[in-house]
Amino acid sequence: MVPTIDFYFEFSSPYGYLASRQIEALAAETGAALRWHPILMGPMFKAIGSAPLTQVPLKGDYALRDFARSALLAGIPYAQPDPFPIATVAAARAALHAREHHPGTEAGLAKALYHAYFVDGRRIDRAEVVLDVAAETGLSRSDVESGIASESIKTALKQEVDDAMARGVFGSPFILVGDEPFWGFDRFDHVRKWLALQK
Amino acid sequence: MVPTIDFYFEFSSPYGYLASRQIEALAAETGAALRWHPILMGPMFKAIGSAPLTQVPLKGDYALRDFARSALLAGIPYAQPDPFPIATVAAARAALHAREHHPGTEAGLAKALYHAYFVDGRRIDRAEVVLDVAAETGLSRSDVESGIASESIKTALKQEVDDAMARGVFGSPFILVGDEPFWGFDRFDHVRKWLALQK
Repeated sequence: MVPTIDFYFEFSSPYGYLASRQIEALAAETGAALRWHPILMGPMFKAIGSAPLTQVPLKGDYALRDFARSALLAGIPYAQPDPFPIATVAAARAALHAREHHPGTEAGLAKALYHAYFVDGRRIDRAEVVLDVAAETGLSRSDVESGIASESIKTALKQEVDDAMARGVFGSPFILVGDEPFWGFDRFDHVRKWLALQK
Repeated sequence: MVPTIDFYFEFSSPYGYLASRQIEALAAETGAALRWHPILMGPMFKAIGSAPLTQVPLKGDYALRDFARSALLAGIPYAQPDPFPIATVAAARAALHAREHHPGTEAGLAKALYHAYFVDGRRIDRAEVVLDVAAETGLSRSDVESGIASESIKTALKQEVDDAMARGVFGSPFILVGDEPFWGFDRFDHVRKWLALQK
């Protein structure tokens, strides 16, 4: 049976962005199927009593440095965006709409939204910028606009976050292979080795 | 000039233990000098408003799993100790005493203390167990006993923790190469690549 990599990510997460650049290669290399799960970290921060990394004393300065260094050492373009972090509900809804209604386009849209924010510094917290990016990937602007405004997508995103938390997801990026959880871009090598051990 | 790896670790830290098993190889491979810095996480948790990983909702279960898996995939023996975490002030003072008064013995003592706790489940929160382990590594039990009770070592450990925090250290393991900070056993590959870039 082909294993599935469930890939959970929040659009304001630098390590989520880095993961989005290599997750398809990881799936291809390990022969796993890949499912993209846009989520929001807000409800998770509440549950674990945490806050965005850059707002934590001492850790904050380190985090900014580690974002850039992790990108550099992985050969991935990165420019620390400002403002940071941002609200990403429109971006997450758009990616979910793409997955649900235009399957096969969600990976391209997710990567384009991440690139817009973490390379070009575009304000993907704004719905109109999300729609611009969607249109640039070939999706219909008006279709995505009505999608992210629909009750069904709003509900689906809440459900996606609830389901993720029920499965133990508490960060971004987060990978589940069945019940096996992997938190962080720095766990890609664990996913690789763990999948090899299952064969 | 030979770079120095300043290696900060707390004896109750699973990732610190894993790091202690590979830090000498990392230093040898990169041609760096290595300095062992036993520290206490308590004051750092206070500063960053955090708590031991296993006491955080959601994160706690994941952490226990990740400790064991990280050890397994690195080929390092590991048995989750109970109780966990523990107070490690006696262990840290002993390691500091070894470094200050018997230079060259601190690495062996630190590794033996970690092994006692994370492999054999011995109670290194108890001073008598720390002294047993010290004696097993060839140190004089009575010398270490008076060392960890001395005002100079108590003061030196406080200073070590203060200095670490002043340099931005907030976790275990933590590596500094000059001003460049690396947090976590999962950053060894960054240390390797970063040192290579400096040449």
